[in-house]
Amino acid sequence: MATSPHTHLLQNPNHLLKSPTTHNNAFPVTSVRTMSNTSGRSISIKCVAPTTTPTQDRPYVPTQSQDRVFNFAAGPATLPENVLRKAQSELYDWRGCGMSVMEMSHRGKEFLSIIQKAEADLRTLLDIPEEYAVLFLQGGATTQFAAIPLNLVNPDDPVDYLVTGSWGDKAFKEAQKYSKAKVIWSGKSEKYTKIPSFDALEQSPDAKYLHICANETIHGVEFKDYPTPKNPNGVLIADMSSNFCSKPVDVSKFGVIYAGAQKNVGPAGVTIVIIRKDLIGNVQGVTPVMLDYKIQSENNSLYNTPPCFCIYMCGLVFEDLLEQGGLKEVEKKNKKKAEILYNAIDESNGFYRCPVEKSVRSLMNVPFTLEKSELEAEFIKEAAKEKMVQLKGHRSVGGMRASIYNAMPLAGVEKLEAFMKDFQVRHA
Amino acid sequence: MATSPHTHLLQNPNHLLKSPTTHNNAFPVTSVRTMSNTSGRSISIKCVAPTTTPTQDRPYVPTQSQDRVFNFAAGPATLPENVLRKAQSELYDWRGCGMSVMEMSHRGKEFLSIIQKAEADLRTLLDIPEEYAVLFLQGGATTQFAAIPLNLVNPDDPVDYLVTGSWGDKAFKEAQKYSKAKVIWSGKSEKYTKIPSFDALEQSPDAKYLHICANETIHGVEFKDYPTPKNPNGVLIADMSSNFCSKPVDVSKFGVIYAGAQKNVGPAGVTIVIIRKDLIGNVQGVTPVMLDYKIQSENNSLYNTPPCFCIYMCGLVFEDLLEQGGLKEVEKKNKKKAEILYNAIDESNGFYRCPVEKSVRSLMNVPFTLEKSELEAEFIKEAAKEKMVQLKGHRSVGGMRASIYNAMPLAGVEKLEAFMKDFQVRHA
Repeated sequence: MATSPHTHLLQNPNHLLKSPTTHNNAFPVTSVRTMSNTSGRSISIKCVAPTTTPTQDRPYVPTQSQDRVFNFAAGPATLPENVLRKAQSELYDWRGCGMSVMEMSHRGKEFLSIIQKAEADLRTLLDIPEEYAVLFLQGGATTQFAAIPLNLVNPDDPVDYLVTGSWGDKAFKEAQKYSKAKVIWSGKSEKYTKIPSFDALEQSPDAKYLHICANETIHGVEFKDYPTPKNPNGVLIADMSSNFCSKPVDVSKFGVIYAGAQKNVGPAGVTIVIIRKDLIGNVQGVTPVMLDYKIQSENNSLYNTPPCFCIYMCGLVFEDLLEQGGLKEVEKKNKKKAEILYNAIDESNGFYRCPVEKSVRSLMNVPFTLEKSELEAEFIKEAAKEKMVQLKGHRSVGGMRASIYNAMPLAGVEKLEAFMKDFQVRHA
Repeated sequence: MATSPHTHLLQNPNHLLKSPTTHNNAFPVTSVRTMSNTSGRSISIKCVAPTTTPTQDRPYVPTQSQDRVFNFAAGPATLPENVLRKAQSELYDWRGCGMSVMEMSHRGKEFLSIIQKAEADLRTLLDIPEEYAVLFLQGGATTQFAAIPLNLVNPDDPVDYLVTGSWGDKAFKEAQKYSKAKVIWSGKSEKYTKIPSFDALEQSPDAKYLHICANETIHGVEFKDYPTPKNPNGVLIADMSSNFCSKPVDVSKFGVIYAGAQKNVGPAGVTIVIIRKDLIGNVQGVTPVMLDYKIQSENNSLYNTPPCFCIYMCGLVFEDLLEQGGLKEVEKKNKKKAEILYNAIDESNGFYRCPVEKSVRSLMNVPFTLEKSELEAEFIKEAAKEKMVQLKGHRSVGGMRASIYNAMPLAGVEKLEAFMKDFQVRHA
């Protein structure tokens, strides 16, 4: 392991002479051992732990460590290795402040610097206009399914839902409690494999908003462009949980974008809401205070204690995405990864099949089945033996699903491709 | 540093010959360096990382590490040092599974084992009867302020609130949206320094529940015993956010106990609800699905993605509390710590003052003022220089507050006591 933090120390004799210094590391160790060599003369070897964190003196290495699995889970999902390393090195003592991020008062200067940096970096990444608020909330996208109509409309207001998968359907069902929600198109009868032409949509002329799920995690259907609300006073709202920050997005096209963090940008437990500020402030009377965007916005997401550590992790991921060159670069990588898998499927002469219409296939979630469905369990089992895990499709659709979010290395996708080809040869 | 994981390896020459093994460590490194000694002959030194985590080969050390501050924050608050060390050692690779807890599917066997163990340990700690459900939710106690009436009563039902501080008052205000909530006693006119005699309470005869905040974090008022609802069909409900798991509690006296984790049992981002199962299932129609106890209970807190890492951290804290001997032992320590501070205040001849009635003083949050209030800023500043931080009282009450939850070491309290005495001598 050439990148071992110990290696460079041993390769540079000057390091061996360094006295131990204070550092916030998992293993603050220094030890001296006197040994004899074959000539009987003794020498002293000092084994010194690195005085910097592992991520500070190593370049970002997008390949996989030896013991690490390739985790194709749909979310919570794989995180960037260097982000995990950094979080690990800082977990016990955040940058010398004498406490963990998990122990910080959410109103203290340390945590305020963390959440403000996270918001600023996200604004840079998505080029979020000034007239939009960014909120860090709890409860997942499912909580937003209620918060959206509760904050934006009255119970008698018409709102439109374009349903391209299970998550859009769940959003619609929750919205029925708080609005006159209508499904203007559903892909259910075609097993959620399509997105309709926007021209053909029969939008309600007075709909206060048009809601979409930008990427359906279970079915692998992703919007490549976005519809415009027919009502000139209506807004477009998107659940972007599973493709958030996977590519550039023109935020100004949307009234609200919301996303659970646990696919592309962090651990489960924080939900990000990007909302045009003029839409805030008309909440229904039955709204729990925690779902009130006005309260959350006025308090900069600190009305009560926020999920501090989850927000911190998102901040580390945002930094990493900026270091990669921003979302244009990230999108390029994601396109390449998805292309590899879809090509492997399409060039398998029907051995593998992806049910989704080619033009709307997701860059994030690649669902596929085997022509010989009786081999699917074997496929998943063998892949797991090769350290490629969580390839089973969602229980509602079966088959396989490879979720290849931002943090899935190209090497993971290439390994899966090679495995698919080998599996086909052995079972054709 | 005698406990260094490297030391034992270097002290035992056999370890130097070991081939590298698979391990889930922050620094899975092995490196070989050929060196010359003074005679010019070369020897090989192998530097091997430990095959166990640091916490496994070190006993629990309840004192403070050199760089660590004593953090008296009211929450998020200090966590047990050994828990942080364990979390750090496992962060990159949880027990050899090849991924972080933050990356695990919430439906995978690894995370299921984590949440199930956390629940089982909590049940042991609080001796929770079988007829109670344990839920791990999001949104803090503030979300429960709405969820309690939404799940337990109809909008026209009377419910009683005994208000002994700001949090009880907030709970009451939120409940007004969903019930005929009534304040049957408030300590506001006496600046929340008392708890009334239970006999004198004028409870509503038909109240569906009686709500209390078992420990008021801001005002330092704690129930030492609990009132019984006058309505034989009513139940007692307690927000225990700031004294949860700080002492044994007879759960069977309550209909619901709820608590944000970020004081005594974990990081911010998870809220624990303990509810008698027969109270579940009568939710109001306007309830967001995420606040529906029936949905959460039927899905074992996995209706959507839970705050996995926060739940994992709570599990580590529960293990630690059990290792300490359970809540009776924990209570003894907490009593001793609180006694030290309250004695320092009471024996200061009025230099320090605690406004709270002695019989209901909190074991968790010790608010105090200086007779010479102009010295308070200096007190806080000097204490911070001595690595005792977050001693400023809540902005709504001023003065000082020392929050001394389970994880505050006795050494921290003793250091504060000594500082208080010294400060008094210097400023009397």
